[in-house]
Amino acid sequence: MSNQPTVADYIVQRLAREGITDCFGVAGDFAFKLNDAVARSKTIRWVGCSNELDAAYAADGYARVRGCSMLMTTYAVGELSALNGVMGARAERSCVFHVVGMPTMRNQRVGKIIHHTLGDGVFQNFANISAQAACVSAVITPDNCVHEMERLIATARAECRPAYILAASDFAITPVTASAPTPYPKPASGPDLAKAVQAITERIQAARSVAVLPACTISRFKLQRSLQALIESLGCPFAVTPMEKGVLSETHPQFVGTYSGAGSSPSVLEAIEAADLVIDAGGVNFNEINTAAYSSRLSSEKLITIEVDYVRIGDRIYNPVRMGDVFEMLAKAAPKNFGYSAPHRQAPAKPGGKPGDPITAAALYPRYRDFIKPMDRIVLESGSSSSGIYPLPLPDGAETQSAPLWGSIGWATGATLGIALADSSRRTVLFTGEGSHQMTATAIGTMGRYGLKPIIFVLNNDGYMVERALEADPNWVYNDLAPWNYHTLPAALGCRGWFTAKVSTLGELDAALARADKGDSACYIEVVGGRTDYPAGLVAANKRLEALYADV
Amino acid sequence: MSNQPTVADYIVQRLAREGITDCFGVAGDFAFKLNDAVARSKTIRWVGCSNELDAAYAADGYARVRGCSMLMTTYAVGELSALNGVMGARAERSCVFHVVGMPTMRNQRVGKIIHHTLGDGVFQNFANISAQAACVSAVITPDNCVHEMERLIATARAECRPAYILAASDFAITPVTASAPTPYPKPASGPDLAKAVQAITERIQAARSVAVLPACTISRFKLQRSLQALIESLGCPFAVTPMEKGVLSETHPQFVGTYSGAGSSPSVLEAIEAADLVIDAGGVNFNEINTAAYSSRLSSEKLITIEVDYVRIGDRIYNPVRMGDVFEMLAKAAPKNFGYSAPHRQAPAKPGGKPGDPITAAALYPRYRDFIKPMDRIVLESGSSSSGIYPLPLPDGAETQSAPLWGSIGWATGATLGIALADSSRRTVLFTGEGSHQMTATAIGTMGRYGLKPIIFVLNNDGYMVERALEADPNWVYNDLAPWNYHTLPAALGCRGWFTAKVSTLGELDAALARADKGDSACYIEVVGGRTDYPAGLVAANKRLEALYADV
Repeated sequence: MSNQPTVADYIVQRLAREGITDCFGVAGDFAFKLNDAVARSKTIRWVGCSNELDAAYAADGYARVRGCSMLMTTYAVGELSALNGVMGARAERSCVFHVVGMPTMRNQRVGKIIHHTLGDGVFQNFANISAQAACVSAVITPDNCVHEMERLIATARAECRPAYILAASDFAITPVTASAPTPYPKPASGPDLAKAVQAITERIQAARSVAVLPACTISRFKLQRSLQALIESLGCPFAVTPMEKGVLSETHPQFVGTYSGAGSSPSVLEAIEAADLVIDAGGVNFNEINTAAYSSRLSSEKLITIEVDYVRIGDRIYNPVRMGDVFEMLAKAAPKNFGYSAPHRQAPAKPGGKPGDPITAAALYPRYRDFIKPMDRIVLESGSSSSGIYPLPLPDGAETQSAPLWGSIGWATGATLGIALADSSRRTVLFTGEGSHQMTATAIGTMGRYGLKPIIFVLNNDGYMVERALEADPNWVYNDLAPWNYHTLPAALGCRGWFTAKVSTLGELDAALARADKGDSACYIEVVGGRTDYPAGLVAANKRLEALYADV
Repeated sequence: MSNQPTVADYIVQRLAREGITDCFGVAGDFAFKLNDAVARSKTIRWVGCSNELDAAYAADGYARVRGCSMLMTTYAVGELSALNGVMGARAERSCVFHVVGMPTMRNQRVGKIIHHTLGDGVFQNFANISAQAACVSAVITPDNCVHEMERLIATARAECRPAYILAASDFAITPVTASAPTPYPKPASGPDLAKAVQAITERIQAARSVAVLPACTISRFKLQRSLQALIESLGCPFAVTPMEKGVLSETHPQFVGTYSGAGSSPSVLEAIEAADLVIDAGGVNFNEINTAAYSSRLSSEKLITIEVDYVRIGDRIYNPVRMGDVFEMLAKAAPKNFGYSAPHRQAPAKPGGKPGDPITAAALYPRYRDFIKPMDRIVLESGSSSSGIYPLPLPDGAETQSAPLWGSIGWATGATLGIALADSSRRTVLFTGEGSHQMTATAIGTMGRYGLKPIIFVLNNDGYMVERALEADPNWVYNDLAPWNYHTLPAALGCRGWFTAKVSTLGELDAALARADKGDSACYIEVVGGRTDYPAGLVAANKRLEALYADV
């Protein structure tokens, strides 16, 4: 009898050392031996989900809070159902360890005709698919397990992207052969680091004004402090694009506001687009969601990009260079302090409307603004909800999580499960539209099952409002939805003790907000809104369809 | 102004000519121009689903009834969410035309940074993935549209497998350039046809006994009549494996029963395993589900396989040979008539138990047997439900649809949407377990929205019962589920006028069955069963874990 742990136990124990305490997934027979290892683990809890897409989104959300996460699915059917969620984690940079069980090597080697295949005795059809959603992957054997786990973990963490870990179920119960892992080299900056810092310093010294645009990778790599130190040493303004909203505290005196091209306030436009030099800290993705439909005007001559693992200045690339090293060296070098202080935030107007009024966007979003508390974790679905929330000022330490680049609707409901479970010490507040919510509403039952207390706002505006706004004709039949009774979902899905409400007037909304503010239970509030009552961001997008799509 | 239809309209009109009148899908901005073409079509109706996996399973179900179906999703996020469902259609042979919209070629050609991508200006990341779930695929342009559609349709129909059709949204609104399509050659048998028929004839003439095992491809290719004519000309017994249950009428005098290895009745074993020659008509997949955990004993010397497009006798392959041609030539050749007549079916015992008794498998499945009517379309989920139903005798013309090879739980609920929508003239009866149902329960709302009247039985036995049966220890935590209130789901998902019930005793079950039998509304019956009250098939599987998995 070997004293070594089995492959399955080793994988679970090694991932536990990364700080993971929960594994999202759906069990399946070819993954049983891996499922068993989680079930008997004292460190990692099994978090069973209704389906794999829910689980993948939850894992993405969890990884954003904890740094990494674990997702376990079964061969073929399970991993393919998770694929969209894992691919989104790749796009949006979330370090999800996707562990998949496959049929035994014994059965593979005799070409057994078996379920979860195309029935042809071929077993390699799906690994290449799942691997494309990861930045690193491995087929684990007892011999390679210890070393491959180091490579998988180091690479996925260095990239902050998914890893795909595949193990046959007979190998899963076989002891690993090596005991002492050779640490895999951590990514490090090379000689280009000093050159890059020197080049940036020169550009800063020559500039009359500098601004910083932090990217969401700052929070993914937990570099908020070192970037904030740099910004403070520069004394320059910073703004965020929608995708990174809340990555640094919005009450910081140098925070000027949300930058999204023509959708920005005058003081943000002045601070960013009129700056001599803009430092992109982390690789902002200038997609159309982040730029109010490609309306940003930032010439590449003015831009310096400090990406996760390289620096770009004009057509020159400096690499390998880790962005954290750049921030630290630059802050120490302290090339210049611009002494910037953002204009004082005006005290926001009190939300308007009478109790009997219907709920309009104009009355709704200021109420959300006032509802949000310091340190809230706000989860935003792609669509009208994010359009309405992105422009709001956030209190200290409140952060948003969204996935506007991948833009897979349904993400936010699933991610809320993972985020709320990853950290129960802070409120998790979800804003979603009902069309997106239909995609993954089953995750509500899982939140109830594990005793989570999210606060959930589902905007029911009779269809995919964002799609109505993104077309010349808002009335296409495919933007209509099955008429769910959303506020009854938590009860149907087995949630106990939840506060639920359906609100159609401002008075009802205010009462529900007050109730939710008590914080003693999970809350699910169905907010009935106007069918085409677009927030300002969608009104603007609707006027720029040609720029957006180039198909009109 | 061109008189030609646009690419989008052409695709829709051409697919309509295949008899498709409904398109399952979820809209998305890069697919809008394709969505529009469906929405304005007079022939094809848009059937909006809650998510893409539901839509894919529904399309699979619809195709089984209508011969082919249409599924429409958007670029990347939509198509990847559908992938598992489409891959299942490939495995189980279902002709789903999967139409996907992508960003404009104009934006692709300038490498625009855009949502639904990895944010890198690369647009080719996902087509290769989706294409792997299809047997044929094409990127449609205005120039190739007319010709490619012929190739796609001919190939997908010849294989009865999915086609992947990708169109950029600017091309989608451009008129097609050619008008008269050259018909793509239909698959035809070659000179090997006569040789194969001759070889089979000789084997039949030399045999003292012959049996036929029809595969599910017989119903996929609508060859029931020609195969039945062959079976009648041979006067031989036929049986079906579970996967093909109901493919020919079970009241036919030559039908001997369900063949699944050691799980078969003595008369079936005698007719099949003791036969001199077994003709596999259509390519039976001898996976473990179909063979009671690899317990079938059919030597390859005794077996002739007539596959969709080839014949195999021993190590000799005859191709190209279409199976329909073989059936017709063989029936005409009438090599021999064996004059077989199946033993008389014994009148089944009346279901037992008292009204106050809890619902056991022993009492439940005979009730289902008596509930099923001639011509019912029965949809079976992989799991305990199918294990319990497979052994039941079916009345005339009742057929089952299941997907045990791909075995993706959740399939049956989604497929029920497609099957019920494809043919409202017959009853659609779904049997599913609650764990599978959680995967795709959102499809219930879509059934309600489109006014369908399925009869749905959800067996709530406190977890994934089939997984408990497939392990030595039934109590692993990952086989537990969120405790949904299943019978309240239809109301929560907006279904109106449905009969719903939760039944825990035989008396309640009998009352609900009587109510459902009236047929005046959709029915959703939550049946509370015992946690480990396995039907016989699962008891047997539980005893053969080593044969099943080779990992113990």
